[in-house]
Amino acid sequence: MKILLHISFLGTKYCGYQIQPNGITVQQKLNEATRQLFGYDCDIVGCSRTDSGVHANHFCAAVTKKGTDSLDTTIPADKIPFAIACYLPEDISVFKAEVVDGSFHPRYDVKYKEYVYRIWNSPERNPFLYDRTLHYPKHIDDIALNNMNKAASAFVGTHDFSAYMSADTKIKDTVRTVYSAEVIRNGDIVEFKVSANGFLYNMVRIFTGTLLAVAEGKISPDGIEYITEKKDRKNAGITVPPCGLFLNRVVY
Amino acid sequence: MKILLHISFLGTKYCGYQIQPNGITVQQKLNEATRQLFGYDCDIVGCSRTDSGVHANHFCAAVTKKGTDSLDTTIPADKIPFAIACYLPEDISVFKAEVVDGSFHPRYDVKYKEYVYRIWNSPERNPFLYDRTLHYPKHIDDIALNNMNKAASAFVGTHDFSAYMSADTKIKDTVRTVYSAEVIRNGDIVEFKVSANGFLYNMVRIFTGTLLAVAEGKISPDGIEYITEKKDRKNAGITVPPCGLFLNRVVY
Repeated sequence: MKILLHISFLGTKYCGYQIQPNGITVQQKLNEATRQLFGYDCDIVGCSRTDSGVHANHFCAAVTKKGTDSLDTTIPADKIPFAIACYLPEDISVFKAEVVDGSFHPRYDVKYKEYVYRIWNSPERNPFLYDRTLHYPKHIDDIALNNMNKAASAFVGTHDFSAYMSADTKIKDTVRTVYSAEVIRNGDIVEFKVSANGFLYNMVRIFTGTLLAVAEGKISPDGIEYITEKKDRKNAGITVPPCGLFLNRVVY
Repeated sequence: MKILLHISFLGTKYCGYQIQPNGITVQQKLNEATRQLFGYDCDIVGCSRTDSGVHANHFCAAVTKKGTDSLDTTIPADKIPFAIACYLPEDISVFKAEVVDGSFHPRYDVKYKEYVYRIWNSPERNPFLYDRTLHYPKHIDDIALNNMNKAASAFVGTHDFSAYMSADTKIKDTVRTVYSAEVIRNGDIVEFKVSANGFLYNMVRIFTGTLLAVAEGKISPDGIEYITEKKDRKNAGITVPPCGLFLNRVVY
């Protein structure tokens, strides 16, 4: 059997999900924990890369015995979350484990993923949220919020999103389909939520930077189509820091 | 003028509020920040001690120039939160500053304080809450919650609370008045909120441990009066860890 782990993690201390030659990653911690739990090396295949400092409310990874497409264990799938917990650090949690088909691929079989970018929108700092939101002190009023939503709606659809991709990537196909994109306020927290069939490098962080430029009046909410069409990274907003970004949902 | 700072802090990295010979404290960070901001040493008087790892949504501390009852500065009180921010670490925030009378005392003038103890009540761990809740995996059902509330209501009133005080304290007067005590559920978070004119050493953590013993059926909700009357620490529940405890409100 192949097991799919449903994971959440606080990314603050990690150099992203994917194994790196330098720096500790979430995948490395999963490698160590599964080796201890099952007694042999495993292949761990994640649903996505994530950047250093990015969090996940919901991340998926498939586990099999190294070099095979199956896991050799007597532990029932529903007990794995508790069994693996003692081998994982406190900032990584497996909250569900399920048996999947041997042909299942956690990355290629994704229907869509949802990200959320959280902004702490208050003049004062919040000591409980400093590593899990962007602190944006200037008040985003209702007009600015409406403009951000107008701009966000222009992201929806199938487009070449290369204007919202960090340079330095060798990727050829930069067309993705965004299914939904909206900005909501919840007290002093402003959230940008976006779902798509795939995301380019830093795309959500550049979307967010662009929406904040809209809030500040630097980019018109009607200007998004132009920015998208021109495919020039320079026209979009800044890449906001990773600390506010959460992979929120993976749907197969 | 004397300035009262309203502060919030994540206590995880600190050996409590009060200056310690070994270990970094919140007061030490306030000492360093005020020295840098005002250009001289200050006296900082807090509203309370807090234990290592305990947090504060609202803590108060008065600042004066060392050895005087006044602060010598041209910075208006309402600008101090922003001015001091760059000298403070990200896990300590001054969210308000106000001028108070020279005779004001942040500890003796407290009318009441409110603490909240937060419990993450889910079988799975929460990587975003591990250092700011107690993880209590066993489900607290409605019956257990009702019993906890029945027990909590028996804390209310003016009592000798020495049964709920950690040994090792030289304090003589162990009578305090608890104004309110209740347990509420908010999704997977169970909160115990208690207000009093003062608290003995570890009192809220022992209250919480006692309420969890009530939830587990180890202590009857009708047994609280007996425990209080007997004044024997052994009859009460355990001292739960500091990570779930927040000083929530200070009222003058």
